[in-house]
Amino acid sequence: MVETTDIQVDGWQTQKRPPMLIRKFEFEDYSQTRDFLDRLAEVSEEMGYHPSLQFDRTQVSVNVSPLEETLGDLEVRFAKQATELAEKTQAG
Amino acid sequence: MVETTDIQVDGWQTQKRPPMLIRKFEFEDYSQTRDFLDRLAEVSEEMGYHPSLQFDRTQVSVNVSPLEETLGDLEVRFAKQATELAEKTQAG
Repeated sequence: MVETTDIQVDGWQTQKRPPMLIRKFEFEDYSQTRDFLDRLAEVSEEMGYHPSLQFDRTQVSVNVSPLEETLGDLEVRFAKQATELAEKTQAG
Repeated sequence: MVETTDIQVDGWQTQKRPPMLIRKFEFEDYSQTRDFLDRLAEVSEEMGYHPSLQFDRTQVSVNVSPLEETLGDLEVRFAKQATELAEKTQAG
């Protein structure tokens, strides 16, 4: 079992207590922000994983807390997918 | 000019510093949560006002900060609309 604190995901900050992967994404306008949120919602439904999201017009903060006690493969996969979706959205 | 601190909206908490109207809405499932967020996004676009929203699977926290220095009519109208939309969504 990989210890939570060792988990690193490119571009994300790993918080130890409580364990969480954190990243803020910036978008050009509200429609890009909504586009990203819609895509992320689909991934959430597919993976059965719902992060805590905070957003306003052009910024989305994604907080990935573990379903169990520690961060694991599911959370890492979700974070990587979020990065990919953000890059696709930003590329327009 | 109504002083920010006097502004009260039924069901919402008025924070003084920084001035903000705050309310957390609970929903039955993720599709209700997304339904509410979609409806709120339309109101945001119509009114040109975008609150800070935090949500996970079944909870949405709405933070209504003023566009100018103090809370005013726009923010109060947005909060009231958010209440209405949440009730409509919860009624299913």
